[in-house]
Amino acid sequence: MNYTDLTLHTDKYQINMMYAHWKQGTMNDNAVFEAYFRNLPFGNGFAVFAGLERLIDYIRKLSFGKEILSYLRKQEEGYEKGFLEELSRFRFNGSIHAMREGTLVFPNEPIVRVEARVFEAQLVETALLNFVNYQTLIATKASRIKRIAPDERLLEFGTRRAQEADAAIWGARAAYIAGFHSTSNMRAGMLFGIPTSGTHAHSWVQGHESEEEAFGQFAEALPDHVTLLVDTYDTLRSGMPNAIKIAKQLESRGKRMKGIRLDSGDLAFLSKKARTMLDEAGLSYVKIVASNDLDENIIADLKAQGARIDVWGVGTKLITAYDQPALGAVYKLVARERAGELVPVIKISGNPEKITNPGVKNVHRIIDKRTGMAVSDYMSMTEETEVREGRAIKLFDPVHSHRVKLVEEYDSIPLLHSIFSAGKLTYEMPNLEQIRSYHESQIALFWPEHLRKLNPEGYTVNFSEKIWELKMKLIREHRK
Amino acid sequence: MNYTDLTLHTDKYQINMMYAHWKQGTMNDNAVFEAYFRNLPFGNGFAVFAGLERLIDYIRKLSFGKEILSYLRKQEEGYEKGFLEELSRFRFNGSIHAMREGTLVFPNEPIVRVEARVFEAQLVETALLNFVNYQTLIATKASRIKRIAPDERLLEFGTRRAQEADAAIWGARAAYIAGFHSTSNMRAGMLFGIPTSGTHAHSWVQGHESEEEAFGQFAEALPDHVTLLVDTYDTLRSGMPNAIKIAKQLESRGKRMKGIRLDSGDLAFLSKKARTMLDEAGLSYVKIVASNDLDENIIADLKAQGARIDVWGVGTKLITAYDQPALGAVYKLVARERAGELVPVIKISGNPEKITNPGVKNVHRIIDKRTGMAVSDYMSMTEETEVREGRAIKLFDPVHSHRVKLVEEYDSIPLLHSIFSAGKLTYEMPNLEQIRSYHESQIALFWPEHLRKLNPEGYTVNFSEKIWELKMKLIREHRK
Repeated sequence: MNYTDLTLHTDKYQINMMYAHWKQGTMNDNAVFEAYFRNLPFGNGFAVFAGLERLIDYIRKLSFGKEILSYLRKQEEGYEKGFLEELSRFRFNGSIHAMREGTLVFPNEPIVRVEARVFEAQLVETALLNFVNYQTLIATKASRIKRIAPDERLLEFGTRRAQEADAAIWGARAAYIAGFHSTSNMRAGMLFGIPTSGTHAHSWVQGHESEEEAFGQFAEALPDHVTLLVDTYDTLRSGMPNAIKIAKQLESRGKRMKGIRLDSGDLAFLSKKARTMLDEAGLSYVKIVASNDLDENIIADLKAQGARIDVWGVGTKLITAYDQPALGAVYKLVARERAGELVPVIKISGNPEKITNPGVKNVHRIIDKRTGMAVSDYMSMTEETEVREGRAIKLFDPVHSHRVKLVEEYDSIPLLHSIFSAGKLTYEMPNLEQIRSYHESQIALFWPEHLRKLNPEGYTVNFSEKIWELKMKLIREHRK
Repeated sequence: MNYTDLTLHTDKYQINMMYAHWKQGTMNDNAVFEAYFRNLPFGNGFAVFAGLERLIDYIRKLSFGKEILSYLRKQEEGYEKGFLEELSRFRFNGSIHAMREGTLVFPNEPIVRVEARVFEAQLVETALLNFVNYQTLIATKASRIKRIAPDERLLEFGTRRAQEADAAIWGARAAYIAGFHSTSNMRAGMLFGIPTSGTHAHSWVQGHESEEEAFGQFAEALPDHVTLLVDTYDTLRSGMPNAIKIAKQLESRGKRMKGIRLDSGDLAFLSKKARTMLDEAGLSYVKIVASNDLDENIIADLKAQGARIDVWGVGTKLITAYDQPALGAVYKLVARERAGELVPVIKISGNPEKITNPGVKNVHRIIDKRTGMAVSDYMSMTEETEVREGRAIKLFDPVHSHRVKLVEEYDSIPLLHSIFSAGKLTYEMPNLEQIRSYHESQIALFWPEHLRKLNPEGYTVNFSEKIWELKMKLIREHRK
């Protein structure tokens, strides 16, 4: 059983729809789907797109091998032999556009666009959303923490509380993209090249006759990498004095202790006390690492109390996006082939925000020429040329349609890049460091008002007039 | 790069501690760690243990191959060559006891116990907790839903919102153990033998000229598996009448439509209306499937409103354990080798609930002979024989230590089973159906008071007198 084969990492209804398309003879009709989310998580002002590397790898490996076909043959649906033969020839021959990883993204704009035979486009929905939803969610959560602690070191160490193994490593990668400095997960380090870091556990101290002996032995083994966990018995009366003793012994050998770690108790109080004790011992170079169910709110609060913490270790709350553990990105049909031509389609809903935006769309980031800052994102039909040619554009706020704004002087950045074209990979995947710096440059495009943790100013994603008119027209047609 | 190799799925501090043990010559000292959680999730009265199959597979495959060693060689810690050679010979030769998957488990009792060289026991902590925390969390969440809808069919279809790929499939398995009937994830179906189910998406309807045509074509393709999604345009005015038309056409071919699915809007109102429409059309056999961000609270509320729903499709809220997305199981050293003998150890904390329970422990479920129902779990030291011999035992409530109870007439069920002994697999892994029925039989051991969703009556996990005395003694020693 090949655990890494993700071809069947899809919902059964995709297979059933593929089968029905095959039966009705429409499997080769082209379809265009767009993935987008409707609401930002955590009350944040933006999200950070991630999941593309995983998606590319998945798409390239799609293939219905023997074992899969034999499994499908046994399904109660009784799929006909011809269908299974068709699947055995399957490969992804469609086109995909997507945002670059690290891009700041906003509600209702397509972050991935798939143009393919409906047979292919339908299959990939589930896995695509699975990867993009989770990785974008964690990159966004990590970015919130980064905004609150821009100058400190940020360590991701959530593996033990992550939602199974993939979440641990892809979450570590997403956090690194958004500005974290390292992960504790060695496998994530090896697979993705993320720097790794780690100290020791309480068990190291329990495993010795005394805390002092435990600290001493650890310093003996790794003299250049000594960060001592000081709360196994009593932080201020035992852990700190013992750590200071060891730091002094290291000094006498010409070494410098790296840090002490606080993992329980009142981190504001203890970090200040620990800082004073270290400073008074002439150890102002020793850093204070803190951990224990931290998130952006607790970190902000600790900083407001004057906590003296240099390094934040963040686990559970980051790796699970604890306060909102799912991003609701969806994948909706926006156009389909009819008599050889692509026609836009819509899905109506009693809930206005669930009505889809029809048509094949591009997204541009509109930059104010004077300030160099982003003013709005602009969605237009792929056949519209105004924004590419830099001509005046009319921005339609799709939520408040009376808000129309003419923009004449602007720079524009196309956000959707070609990833696959007719099944061929067209995108040169940047390395992780490049993605991380690209993300930083993205952040720099936005005013602080959009980036703040609490009640950020909303950044608008506008429609072109054409999309707006098309949407209204299709709604009218369906109302009839 | 071997993505499935989980040997490095561990925190760097484990590697650093292994290195320090190697340097100090204590790598072969035996150590005993116990995994347990301190608090039940969701305000539930119990948790459902899961994660063992994954853990067994992980343990068996542990091996430091060339690629891993070359990665470790490049770490800034500068691990010595002898250490890497030691790792190249590594295999897990220790012993593991664990609960059976599907067992109802409670705070503070060991659910997994690892006895091994500290070198081995330390390595496995991170992955063990990663698997057990997530899978136990989801099995518990699923069990809550099962309690609320014991007689309806329960479908898991959260993949698109799961926290990456592993969570989707292992979460589907955990849900099945706890009583769900199927998953939408085909890969989970193939890997684990879970029944799969699925209907069609909105895109199927959008992809046709009319809803009626879409429904008709789907029924044409899969006449024995027709469940129609009726809310693409207008549930009561379009979806339901079209679905009924198709059901009648199917009848004329001697077929029966399986169901209709509601995925938005007021499910209480719509399900009642839909039921009436179906019944009036003589289609009382057609089931009503509902989905849309359901969890046990919404399902309970819908049932209280008299919603007519036969099948519940549960996604996001189950697969992410949305209202509490992490279980906080920990892995603590309870005994270590000193001069060739195992001695119990403790970790003190300013927070009393974080003080560990020392010593190598067994757990028995104490069954009232008259009722056949579970009355309490009982932890004793492995060397204590009273409970195994059925002699009178004294139950100590570790939270309220004045509550002491003598029990004389009881049956007892040992809960920790040998999984590995000296590196050899000793456990015959039951198949998934066996685990699922075992779980049902577990549920039957408990009074409804412990099983209810809201404010369940607490089930106690008691200490033996010996553990209690040992704990008090070690605390006193550390206080000195």
